[in-house]
Amino acid sequence: MARFPFSAIVGQDEMKQALLIAAVDPSVGGVMVFGDRGTGKSTAARALAGLLPPISAIEDCRYGCTGEERGTCPDPCTSGRVRKRDVPFVDLPLGATEDRVIGSLDLERALRAGEKAFEPGLLAKAHRGFLYIDEINLLEDHLVDLLLDVAASGENVVEREGLSVRHRAKFVLIGSGNPEEGELRPQLLDRFGLSVEVRTPEDIETRVEIMRLVAANERDPDAFAKEWAEQDDKILKQIARGKAKLAKLEPGEDVLRDAAQLCMAVGADGLRGELTLMRAARALAALKGARSVKREHLIAVAPSALRHRLRRDVLDETGSTVRITRAIDELFG
Amino acid sequence: MARFPFSAIVGQDEMKQALLIAAVDPSVGGVMVFGDRGTGKSTAARALAGLLPPISAIEDCRYGCTGEERGTCPDPCTSGRVRKRDVPFVDLPLGATEDRVIGSLDLERALRAGEKAFEPGLLAKAHRGFLYIDEINLLEDHLVDLLLDVAASGENVVEREGLSVRHRAKFVLIGSGNPEEGELRPQLLDRFGLSVEVRTPEDIETRVEIMRLVAANERDPDAFAKEWAEQDDKILKQIARGKAKLAKLEPGEDVLRDAAQLCMAVGADGLRGELTLMRAARALAALKGARSVKREHLIAVAPSALRHRLRRDVLDETGSTVRITRAIDELFG
Amino acid sequence: MARFPFSAIVGQDEMKQALLIAAVDPSVGGVMVFGDRGTGKSTAARALAGLLPPISAIEDCRYGCTGEERGTCPDPCTSGRVRKRDVPFVDLPLGATEDRVIGSLDLERALRAGEKAFEPGLLAKAHRGFLYIDEINLLEDHLVDLLLDVAASGENVVEREGLSVRHRAKFVLIGSGNPEEGELRPQLLDRFGLSVEVRTPEDIETRVEIMRLVAANERDPDAFAKEWAEQDDKILKQIARGKAKLAKLEPGEDVLRDAAQLCMAVGADGLRGELTLMRAARALAALKGARSVKREHLIAVAPSALRHRLRRDVLDETGSTVRITRAIDELFG
Amino acid sequence: MARFPFSAIVGQDEMKQALLIAAVDPSVGGVMVFGDRGTGKSTAARALAGLLPPISAIEDCRYGCTGEERGTCPDPCTSGRVRKRDVPFVDLPLGATEDRVIGSLDLERALRAGEKAFEPGLLAKAHRGFLYIDEINLLEDHLVDLLLDVAASGENVVEREGLSVRHRAKFVLIGSGNPEEGELRPQLLDRFGLSVEVRTPEDIETRVEIMRLVAANERDPDAFAKEWAEQDDKILKQIARGKAKLAKLEPGEDVLRDAAQLCMAVGADGLRGELTLMRAARALAALKGARSVKREHLIAVAPSALRHRLRRDVLDETGSTVRITRAIDELFG
Amino acid sequence: MARFPFSAIVGQDEMKQALLIAAVDPSVGGVMVFGDRGTGKSTAARALAGLLPPISAIEDCRYGCTGEERGTCPDPCTSGRVRKRDVPFVDLPLGATEDRVIGSLDLERALRAGEKAFEPGLLAKAHRGFLYIDEINLLEDHLVDLLLDVAASGENVVEREGLSVRHRAKFVLIGSGNPEEGELRPQLLDRFGLSVEVRTPEDIETRVEIMRLVAANERDPDAFAKEWAEQDDKILKQIARGKAKLAKLEPGEDVLRDAAQLCMAVGADGLRGELTLMRAARALAALKGARSVKREHLIAVAPSALRHRLRRDVLDETGSTVRITRAIDELFG
Amino acid sequence: MARFPFSAIVGQDEMKQALLIAAVDPSVGGVMVFGDRGTGKSTAARALAGLLPPISAIEDCRYGCTGEERGTCPDPCTSGRVRKRDVPFVDLPLGATEDRVIGSLDLERALRAGEKAFEPGLLAKAHRGFLYIDEINLLEDHLVDLLLDVAASGENVVEREGLSVRHRAKFVLIGSGNPEEGELRPQLLDRFGLSVEVRTPEDIETRVEIMRLVAANERDPDAFAKEWAEQDDKILKQIARGKAKLAKLEPGEDVLRDAAQLCMAVGADGLRGELTLMRAARALAALKGARSVKREHLIAVAPSALRHRLRRDVLDETGSTVRITRAIDELFG
Repeated sequence: MARFPFSAIVGQDEMKQALLIAAVDPSVGGVMVFGDRGTGKSTAARALAGLLPPISAIEDCRYGCTGEERGTCPDPCTSGRVRKRDVPFVDLPLGATEDRVIGSLDLERALRAGEKAFEPGLLAKAHRGFLYIDEINLLEDHLVDLLLDVAASGENVVEREGLSVRHRAKFVLIGSGNPEEGELRPQLLDRFGLSVEVRTPEDIETRVEIMRLVAANERDPDAFAKEWAEQDDKILKQIARGKAKLAKLEPGEDVLRDAAQLCMAVGADGLRGELTLMRAARALAALKGARSVKREHLIAVAPSALRHRLRRDVLDETGSTVRITRAIDELFG
Repeated sequence: MARFPFSAIVGQDEMKQALLIAAVDPSVGGVMVFGDRGTGKSTAARALAGLLPPISAIEDCRYGCTGEERGTCPDPCTSGRVRKRDVPFVDLPLGATEDRVIGSLDLERALRAGEKAFEPGLLAKAHRGFLYIDEINLLEDHLVDLLLDVAASGENVVEREGLSVRHRAKFVLIGSGNPEEGELRPQLLDRFGLSVEVRTPEDIETRVEIMRLVAANERDPDAFAKEWAEQDDKILKQIARGKAKLAKLEPGEDVLRDAAQLCMAVGADGLRGELTLMRAARALAALKGARSVKREHLIAVAPSALRHRLRRDVLDETGSTVRITRAIDELFG
Repeated sequence: MARFPFSAIVGQDEMKQALLIAAVDPSVGGVMVFGDRGTGKSTAARALAGLLPPISAIEDCRYGCTGEERGTCPDPCTSGRVRKRDVPFVDLPLGATEDRVIGSLDLERALRAGEKAFEPGLLAKAHRGFLYIDEINLLEDHLVDLLLDVAASGENVVEREGLSVRHRAKFVLIGSGNPEEGELRPQLLDRFGLSVEVRTPEDIETRVEIMRLVAANERDPDAFAKEWAEQDDKILKQIARGKAKLAKLEPGEDVLRDAAQLCMAVGADGLRGELTLMRAARALAALKGARSVKREHLIAVAPSALRHRLRRDVLDETGSTVRITRAIDELFG
Repeated sequence: MARFPFSAIVGQDEMKQALLIAAVDPSVGGVMVFGDRGTGKSTAARALAGLLPPISAIEDCRYGCTGEERGTCPDPCTSGRVRKRDVPFVDLPLGATEDRVIGSLDLERALRAGEKAFEPGLLAKAHRGFLYIDEINLLEDHLVDLLLDVAASGENVVEREGLSVRHRAKFVLIGSGNPEEGELRPQLLDRFGLSVEVRTPEDIETRVEIMRLVAANERDPDAFAKEWAEQDDKILKQIARGKAKLAKLEPGEDVLRDAAQLCMAVGADGLRGELTLMRAARALAALKGARSVKREHLIAVAPSALRHRLRRDVLDETGSTVRITRAIDELFG
Repeated sequence: MARFPFSAIVGQDEMKQALLIAAVDPSVGGVMVFGDRGTGKSTAARALAGLLPPISAIEDCRYGCTGEERGTCPDPCTSGRVRKRDVPFVDLPLGATEDRVIGSLDLERALRAGEKAFEPGLLAKAHRGFLYIDEINLLEDHLVDLLLDVAASGENVVEREGLSVRHRAKFVLIGSGNPEEGELRPQLLDRFGLSVEVRTPEDIETRVEIMRLVAANERDPDAFAKEWAEQDDKILKQIARGKAKLAKLEPGEDVLRDAAQLCMAVGADGLRGELTLMRAARALAALKGARSVKREHLIAVAPSALRHRLRRDVLDETGSTVRITRAIDELFG
Repeated sequence: MARFPFSAIVGQDEMKQALLIAAVDPSVGGVMVFGDRGTGKSTAARALAGLLPPISAIEDCRYGCTGEERGTCPDPCTSGRVRKRDVPFVDLPLGATEDRVIGSLDLERALRAGEKAFEPGLLAKAHRGFLYIDEINLLEDHLVDLLLDVAASGENVVEREGLSVRHRAKFVLIGSGNPEEGELRPQLLDRFGLSVEVRTPEDIETRVEIMRLVAANERDPDAFAKEWAEQDDKILKQIARGKAKLAKLEPGEDVLRDAAQLCMAVGADGLRGELTLMRAARALAALKGARSVKREHLIAVAPSALRHRLRRDVLDETGSTVRITRAIDELFG
């Protein structure tokens, strides 16, 4: 199925910002997309795959080792040349079994050679890229837990079927879900770096525009893709520049203080709130080509970074987003 | 079991229209047929199989590749000639196991040659055709989910039993169900393109007519089939012409605006409502041989396209169909 | 275990009529027998097996092909001679596994020859005969569903364990159940053609008579069987004549109209009611050697054909049977 | 473990009578023993095994064929000599798996010779004898159902693991259960022929007597067994004479009429009540060496034969046993 | 892990008495130890293992046959010499699978030699000794049932995986459990011979004493064991003398009468109460070197023998132990 | 993933003290860490692994035998030299299967050599070190039970898959959990030696400091590690000295008395409270280089040693920690 161009997506700015931040700095953690059915959650996540800058990896290495990591994975890759390859974008299919996600005993070799070898799974495939799970709330808790665990530690430790293997598995987890279909447990939500909300646009013009673009794409997908190629290419370059810049940006004491104050004001449990705020603001600054991380970057990412970590306040029925923007106004307004 | 001729079905015009639209443009998404027991839901769906124009595919290719797709499926089909074959119509048997639906490890080759090969399942068989599920509400949610997922993406991605395979699987999903037996979750319903309601006819004449036709068919099925062959052939040609015409029809700005207004008026969540309206109206126009997509086509398909996506309105107990026709009257009447 | 002769069964006329109708025309659909424990439900069904006229089939063909069907089953039977064999009567044992019902991979051949062959199950064995399930309400719903599905379509479609097989499986399903033990879902009940109710006889004479016959049978089963052989043979001939006659009987417009009116009057959902009425009346006429299907035949089968399909009427607590006979009186009385 | 001699059991006359009746005529159906924990239910059932007269069977035949049945079982036994062997008494061990009960694929032969052979289970072992289940209410319903089904039909029909086998399995099922631990479903209870109730004796003398006998048995089991051997042998001979006499006893019209009247008076559902009454009275008459079946025999077995089949009467809280003896008094008193 | 010496256990006299009684006469049935967490239940049970007199068994016989039993177990032991070995003390590990408890097919021989041999499990290992289950209430009911069944019959009958084996398995079952963690079903409790309650000591001196002993043991386990060896040896000899004496002690009519009266007075269901009282009093008399069984022995064991078998009395909230001592006072005081 | 230096952890003194005590004397039992999400529970536990003094073990021995234990493990290690190796620190991965935890049949050898050998699991790997379980409350109870059982006995007894193996498995279990996600059963909690509570710091300065350190570590992990290496090394030496000192410290009568009094005052069930107090105070004294165990050491460890063992007092809603410090004040203040 041809992917819809990222730049042809109408509106949905918060979601697009969150995906670009995760593309620049995967260490912000995963992105959770909340939204009603039919709002294009999947379309955007899948569109992202089309505009990521390629990576360098050893040819044929199933674990995507870089040149420096040569020979350090379970299936040592000492001979291949380093080559460019697409950023992995794994779309977790419904019905994928746990052994294909984690990896499993290579039955073929076991039967033929009587050897116990590891066959890498989707976690290895997603290394250095993205792992997308549509309707993540339909997955069993323990699998979500496992995916978040690996995403957080950057390592897949396998202790199954008599196998004892570990390999790198650094990726950004993107989940989408419809709150009406049942929510994720707070404990799981908290482990996502960012969260965004998408809604059906409420004005006629936007909706007609979307239908027009979809119809055009259906009529001639190749022509449509070409039409938007230039725009997508611009974003690709912006991401590449952002990644390069990131290492040089150091958030100042003032921004850290802002982050801590904001988190205490809105009542975010734990320290993940301010750590994510810091990382996401730094990535946004890098993406925008700014010279330093500023309060404006912090404000721009605050709703995405905090929305899903607020303590429920039984006396205050205000929604999470409103509570965050109100606190921003009071503190920095 | 000999199939009942499509044209010999008495009444049930909305169901027949929806099936023909799906035959002309599979991208409208699946068709969900609601109805009491004994209303002939299955008979109509199975009758459809008899009047579809044949398709061209590479001889012996188990994935139904066209000439242009030669050699692009898991089981490369580089040598066969292109030949006509019947449109696939897969009737999902109760008790079909998940591995036969998705495909699985080819045990015979695994045992004989020690090779891990993929044996395509019903999803591959249904490619370029129809997949019919009687009493879909009796299926487990996760299987319905999977089928809708594949139907939507047009691709079957298999990550099971150490296999990692993907192949084309474009088909129209037709489901039938009895609302008294428990409903599908809204999330699943929303992923069907069209829905229709069938009822037991309430007048004696129609019921006697149906008995007469059934008795005639039981007495001599071959003669009965011949009697209706000409009528069925006409419909087959109408479908073929509609498919050819479809690519040339472009819904105008006015029709798109009508669709958006109607969806906002009736309160259909998300954007699937208007996208389906647009596609179904276009297919109906093609089927009718019209020169352009008109408001009348939109009105004719609106109940089927929207009925199953309306938000429940606790203050308004009116049925979905009535709410849609009322909105049509107010907007375009 | 020696079977009790069909003609030695005391009373229970409705059950006997329903079983004979199904024997003459299997297309009426299955027979559901309701009754308290200990009323001889099983005895009657099992007795039926003893008096069915033999069928012609190719020798050794495990799918019971007729001479005309030679070589059209999964296990082609091209060489055998056509011979008489008993009508199959399969008594589904409790604990029969799904794979033995449907058929399964032939493990012996798989292990010995490495070939994937199909081993037919009880559905193949029951082809052209009867499949009896005692206490059908103890079976899992999905298995009942599957059996009714195959009984209705006359075809067993197997998609399991890497097998994709279809073969003829036309049989009459006979189920017995005790309503106190939990009912079948209405959806399943509706798919039975006929239903009958059996009760413990309330008069001393009948009960003594039954004990006398049972004691006689226990004392000397062979002598008992001989004593009733002539009576059973008469019924066998009646069935054979009925089958031959059936094809020539065409229900007239008036009988069809009667059927439709009766169904609407009693409020039978869907069209299965009148279709079954028509078929059962036709079979009864054939069984009785009548020259045409008459209103009296319709009336005689109406309770069996409609009893299990009436909509529950919360304002009318009258039992199903009473509602049907009352409607008959009002319409035709 | 040495068995306690049957004749050394103190009291419990109803249980002993029921076990002896079943030993004389297995066709009365199984015996269900109700009682508190620690009342010696198991001791009595297990004691019965010691005093059954031996049977004649073909040597080495695993299905216990008689000389006349030579070669008619799944494992044909054409060569062995006919020899005496003990009456089978199978004590179903907790944790017995379903395949060992029913029989299963003979894995050893399957692995060695690649042949699909049947390995008979406990049902074959129990043929012509007894199958005892302690705490039958702890068994899963479907297994109880299966056991009762086989016990009733006298045949084990196996349709599992690709096997299709049938063999004789005539045995008396003896179940024991504690009503406090949860009851069997009425449908299952009804399929037992007789039921008895045992209680802890309420007088000191009996209890001291029991302790004395148990202590004596514990001190020197061999001496104890010798002490009671003569008494046990008398009972063995009584059973053998009863079995021989049974075929010649024919219950007269008057006894049948008594049975029917009693069943109608107490409100026993179905016909199993009077059929069991007739059979049990006949067996008791045979056991007692009577020339004909008399009313006194009927009265003696009535509580055991009817107790577990009475309809619950919400207006009459009287226990089952009382209702039966009261009806006996009113009818025959 | 070094065991704590039995004689170094501070207090807990009832538990120690029960364990010694079971060591002298295993036929009293198992011992159930109730108590809060951290009261040393496990320590005492495990300490018992260290002071049991050795047994004579045929060398290498996996079923522990004595010289007289030579060649009577599944794995005939005709050649070995008779030798002393430690009394078996099996500590059932959590996570032990049912097949390891009961025994199972010997896979190694099955795969290598194609023979179906039995590999004895923990029940065989425990024969002639003790089987200890910590937190028995966490075990599944059916496994507890099975263990009690085998413990009671002294025989393990295996009908699994195509195996049909029986072997001696006489052992004392010792279970420990915390009533707060959920109780065993009364039916299961009743099958234990004795039960004891242990509590945390309430005075400072005892608690300091325990800490002192534990600290001493932790500092130098070998020295600690030597220090208590003499004391433990005394108990070992006491047990050995008790076992020898047991066969000569016969409880008199008066003691049996006392037992029956006491059981009726406290309302113990069934006869297991008085049978256990008799056996436990006899064992205690033997242990104490008494010439006959006296009322004082009966009184000393009564709480342990009856506590877990009392009928709940809704009008009398008094604990079980109190009810027993009160009855003793009234009857014999 | 690079570990965060132990000494760079800001605050959290109670947790750090508990981990150091467990490192000095593993016999105190496991450590349970309670805390909200995002408070760095995992970071601290994982940091501990970096600063443990190495151990001596036989080269290649998979069970970590010391020189004195040569040849006493299941996989005898008679030839290897004794060498230093890192203290094992096993981080139990989510999704680890029971067989990998306990150990299992070595399939590779079974298939290749037809031998039944044991492949050690994570319990063997953790021997002489630490086993860390993040979110232990998500583990199934029976697995937690098993881990605590092995941790307490220091031995892994395997009775599975026909294997019967035992090997040393002495390790400290560290669990972390969020009380909001569901608590461990009291019975399980009680078996942990120590418990600590961690909270999100409430002052801005600490939070900014943490962000600063995290950012510094993310920018250049290697430089960050070097910066803290000296501090970590100091702690390593402190642990080594503590371990050496431990055997010489004997808690005096006065300290034991204090422990008993404190436990009775706060109402800790069982004796595990005072035994743990004694051991933890002794370890703390060793760690601090004190000459004897003093009351101050007891006071310092009391909250960690008792907090999770207090009986719930419905009349006193005070938290556990407050109740303990209050009792300390009253007794020793």
